[in-house]
Amino acid sequence: MDGRYLEDFEVGEVFTTPGVTLTEAQIVDFALTSDPQPFHIDKEAARGSMFGELVASGLQTMALTFRMFYQTGVLATCNLGGPGFGDVTFPRPVRPGDTISTRVEVLEARVSKSKPDRGILRLAYTGLNQAGEEVVRFTIPQMVLRRPELIR
Amino acid sequence: MDGRYLEDFEVGEVFTTPGVTLTEAQIVDFALTSDPQPFHIDKEAARGSMFGELVASGLQTMALTFRMFYQTGVLATCNLGGPGFGDVTFPRPVRPGDTISTRVEVLEARVSKSKPDRGILRLAYTGLNQAGEEVVRFTIPQMVLRRPELIR
Repeated sequence: MDGRYLEDFEVGEVFTTPGVTLTEAQIVDFALTSDPQPFHIDKEAARGSMFGELVASGLQTMALTFRMFYQTGVLATCNLGGPGFGDVTFPRPVRPGDTISTRVEVLEARVSKSKPDRGILRLAYTGLNQAGEEVVRFTIPQMVLRRPELIR
Repeated sequence: MDGRYLEDFEVGEVFTTPGVTLTEAQIVDFALTSDPQPFHIDKEAARGSMFGELVASGLQTMALTFRMFYQTGVLATCNLGGPGFGDVTFPRPVRPGDTISTRVEVLEARVSKSKPDRGILRLAYTGLNQAGEEVVRFTIPQMVLRRPELIR
């Protein structure tokens, strides 16, 4: 459903996305500029780390999980941005060749007290690997527009 | 100071980094793959957004802030990775040409109860722009090694 506004989301509603496979090249490329810890950029060093092999930067997993949902277009009409992330956890590492998809649940949908043309959609994001295991969890207090005909 | 372990950090200790200037090209490149919201990739659309111009993805600001501190080498010897981020907030947007530096404060340093060879260093990261204004804040519960000669 395109053209959604705040009023078109229901608490408890769940969205799921297609998967995307994260390659070794993508893991190293991202980490080299954004998170150059040895276990994200150096296969040899990664073998001696607690992960035992190369793993993706958590920031890359967050970005991928966010993007997969964003690309569904659900927020395209109403999105005003998000001022932050609630607690971010990485229950399991993402390894080269893993396929990640996103599950988003609407936790809360409320009108702003100070700005009546908008509201806050609290969304719980979960990134899942091909085995259905959780690889990242976070929330976003997404600022969105209200349906224009409902205002004033 | 290189070669640090858990015992070498003091609560209240503060580290600061040099700055790095984030260009328009870097903002668009990062966002195109990691956070393709219009106000991060499209200058024209960004003019009509609440930001009024192109702004960097918050994920890019987080990554840059993390990397600038990581590159100081303070964690190079002891780093075991971080299992997540505490609440992440973006008090101000980052615009093309802004110069970002990082301030990290040690909030807590404690030995793990279950694994005596390591501990947790709770670090508060703040990204600052050229005017000294905060652009991002988050914490990381950083897992680090204890000084080997202190164990057993």
